[in-house]
Amino acid sequence: MARLTIRLDFDSGASIGPGKVRLLETIDRTHSIRKSAEEMGMSFRQAWLLLKAIEETFGEPVIATSRGGARGGGSALTALGHAVVARYRRLEAAAQLAGKTEMDALEASSRLARPASRGRRLPRKSPKPA
Amino acid sequence: MARLTIRLDFDSGASIGPGKVRLLETIDRTHSIRKSAEEMGMSFRQAWLLLKAIEETFGEPVIATSRGGARGGGSALTALGHAVVARYRRLEAAAQLAGKTEMDALEASSRLARPASRGRRLPRKSPKPA
Repeated sequence: MARLTIRLDFDSGASIGPGKVRLLETIDRTHSIRKSAEEMGMSFRQAWLLLKAIEETFGEPVIATSRGGARGGGSALTALGHAVVARYRRLEAAAQLAGKTEMDALEASSRLARPASRGRRLPRKSPKPA
Repeated sequence: MARLTIRLDFDSGASIGPGKVRLLETIDRTHSIRKSAEEMGMSFRQAWLLLKAIEETFGEPVIATSRGGARGGGSALTALGHAVVARYRRLEAAAQLAGKTEMDALEASSRLARPASRGRRLPRKSPKPA
């Protein structure tokens, strides 16, 4: 089945999409920015910049970091962080449901693709601009 | 108002998103791959590779190019090309409508952002991984 991914652009110019949301979800699970970055194949700095961008979008922290303690501290989502993830995932689910007819039709068309076909397809090499 | 953008990933690994759809729409308007590439700030080759990718996704041409004739030839969308654009835009509209509640809530949260706030925000410089 076709899978839908959503990106939201706000009036402010800020945006939120699958990468930022998955980072929040991964921090929620691992309680570690470093581990989450590793798991997602990005540097600690990249992850940190994404978190900073989300924070600037919403004006409040989306993660809280504690130091020390019996479990050695760690990062957790704030209430806002949880709300952003939940709303994005609900939006995605609603969109997936609402767009099912069109998605199924597009998926069905894509299944008709016959890679071996040599009909009227574009030539392998790009022609000169015309 | 927040604006939603959709990307579809098919089981085959193929995908379709705003860039490919906008390219088709621009060709539909300009009747020229070259002009469309220019308008979208990409090279002719990039545009051509996107068209080739869409064609491979759906197994049939999405544009037809005529040469010569009274109007000097040009490119036009095939019925499949039109259908892909129409279905994608309908999917987008359905998703935008279905996700309105969550999008409005996220947009409202983002409007609360106060760039001047110096509360508990992340420090400007990234801390050491912890």
